[in-house]
Amino acid sequence: MIRSLEWNGDALKIIDQTKLPHDTVYRELHRIEEVHEAIQKLRVRGAPAIGVAAAYGLYMGLRSQSYDSAAEVLHHAKELSDYLAGSRPTAVNLQWALKTITEKFAGSDKSAGDLVKDFLAEAIAIHKDDEERCRQIGENGSKVIEDRMTVLTHCNTGALATAGIGTAFGVIYQAHRQGKRIDVLVDETRPLLQGARLTMWELNQAGIPGRLITDNMAAYAMQTGKIDLVIVGADRIAANGDVANKIGTYSLAVLADYHGIPFYVAAPLSTFDFSIERGDQIPIEERDPAEVIRIWDQLEITVPQALSWNPAFDVTPSELITCIITEEGLINSPVEKNIQRLIQHTYQN
Amino acid sequence: MIRSLEWNGDALKIIDQTKLPHDTVYRELHRIEEVHEAIQKLRVRGAPAIGVAAAYGLYMGLRSQSYDSAAEVLHHAKELSDYLAGSRPTAVNLQWALKTITEKFAGSDKSAGDLVKDFLAEAIAIHKDDEERCRQIGENGSKVIEDRMTVLTHCNTGALATAGIGTAFGVIYQAHRQGKRIDVLVDETRPLLQGARLTMWELNQAGIPGRLITDNMAAYAMQTGKIDLVIVGADRIAANGDVANKIGTYSLAVLADYHGIPFYVAAPLSTFDFSIERGDQIPIEERDPAEVIRIWDQLEITVPQALSWNPAFDVTPSELITCIITEEGLINSPVEKNIQRLIQHTYQN
Repeated sequence: MIRSLEWNGDALKIIDQTKLPHDTVYRELHRIEEVHEAIQKLRVRGAPAIGVAAAYGLYMGLRSQSYDSAAEVLHHAKELSDYLAGSRPTAVNLQWALKTITEKFAGSDKSAGDLVKDFLAEAIAIHKDDEERCRQIGENGSKVIEDRMTVLTHCNTGALATAGIGTAFGVIYQAHRQGKRIDVLVDETRPLLQGARLTMWELNQAGIPGRLITDNMAAYAMQTGKIDLVIVGADRIAANGDVANKIGTYSLAVLADYHGIPFYVAAPLSTFDFSIERGDQIPIEERDPAEVIRIWDQLEITVPQALSWNPAFDVTPSELITCIITEEGLINSPVEKNIQRLIQHTYQN
Repeated sequence: MIRSLEWNGDALKIIDQTKLPHDTVYRELHRIEEVHEAIQKLRVRGAPAIGVAAAYGLYMGLRSQSYDSAAEVLHHAKELSDYLAGSRPTAVNLQWALKTITEKFAGSDKSAGDLVKDFLAEAIAIHKDDEERCRQIGENGSKVIEDRMTVLTHCNTGALATAGIGTAFGVIYQAHRQGKRIDVLVDETRPLLQGARLTMWELNQAGIPGRLITDNMAAYAMQTGKIDLVIVGADRIAANGDVANKIGTYSLAVLADYHGIPFYVAAPLSTFDFSIERGDQIPIEERDPAEVIRIWDQLEITVPQALSWNPAFDVTPSELITCIITEEGLINSPVEKNIQRLIQHTYQN
């Protein structure tokens, strides 16, 4: 399998996603400034992948200086975290990862040298943890995919978006590894074309048969019996099971419901935000209209004075979701009710 | 209003649609070979517009020679029709228009000179007829659009596709002319981006407020209450009211149904093909996968070895259609039943 992130003992090796799908360029990042630049320029993308890269970046920043005390290390770590968090100001996940690490070591009584090493150990632990969660999601989810099924997916949820095999893509990957002969239809995922650029590339790397379609073809594919199930990732899941994900996800959920096709969401439990009750309370980022009006800032597809609307995400209500696939198992429909059971279980333990 | 086709007494003036939306280039076509090239290269497109252009082209071909008899004219007309029909081999409409004209004059006892002039008169009549039908569709359809509504449309169905104000676009245009303050959301309409390129250009020309969205945003726009009605054109309508139209139309119909939003089809009666009983019997053209994999043959959006699937049309079952807007009036839901009434009415007259 491909790895979008690898720690080689001294540097973080990444696949430069801005060069995909045309060129597979690896870069070794040695300094925090290089990690900052890679996140900012989307060379590394995908919420879990960004969090892992930032954790390594924090360590790289710390090791570049010498310290007299743990307190000095922690003070510097705080400054470096703020710097890294600025690389993608809207990436909540990135900020959360950095905050978690720095808070974990608050008040440490170790030597400065040992503490810096602990930051590396923590980055490696976060990396391994994400990898393991992906593996579990893939294993759990693969049970819903049968031999000879055609699966529709949206956006990119694979190795390029995580530190492991991915979430929704990980499920497809695992089913393929089990020898199931599956076929994948990939939504191109306008405006940023992550399906065309990244998922098609990952399928090709993994040797999994896949075909690209435009986003408006999914309904016709369902009507003509070409799709057995739909599987997507998630950016944030509300306490009631409503799922915020890449724009176009909600459209697929309604269409799947109409055609009686199962609709799965694959995501780690960390995607649940129990502080948010319902999906309509999740803020939806509206991005630069230029992403719709131009393709990759290269091809002008409409009149120069055109206006556009560019919501980057949408919200799928839990009643349209057959099942949420997590590392701890499947949360079956009715998702809302079964999530409540999960919360109670979590509180009891 | 803009006119995609104008006869200036000697030549056919067209807007070269391959230059839109960036440049508005008019061309004067004097010879049949120029008309053939314009249709073949998609400088003129849209079923009704192609039929009208071909009718003028046929006259241009005939006037370039001298004849001893009407029979000689008709023999040449048959040759020229075959030549023009080859400019877009799959355009049934084009072939139908040429066949209708040549058959109309079969066995004529006029002088050769008068008969050639009749071919011009017939081209002008077809041109005017399409213009008038568009006007009537616009007038009839405008009643369903109320002040301050937001209308979603798909592909291009305007002056660029017809000899008049268009079909679905004509309805929007007429409502705007009546002073209704409407806002239009335009699906970009991948793979060929007719919404982004052509409909956005026509809205801009007409001074009608419009915003471009990617095809996968329509569902979210409906969910958040941004769309009051959907209106699209049609390529072919079966006897039971099922509608074949640009890929993505069926998706919009299912989504509109789910959200309780009215879904209108605007088309001249000539779009009905009573020889086809149900929509699933309409052959769906699958076009070159390169249209999905590359954008305008310029931008490679996926891996070089990518496969794709490229159905150019889909079929919307009549039960999802609120109403079909024709030049003779509205065929209300249940469309299937009311079309039967129309057929009976047509047979009785």
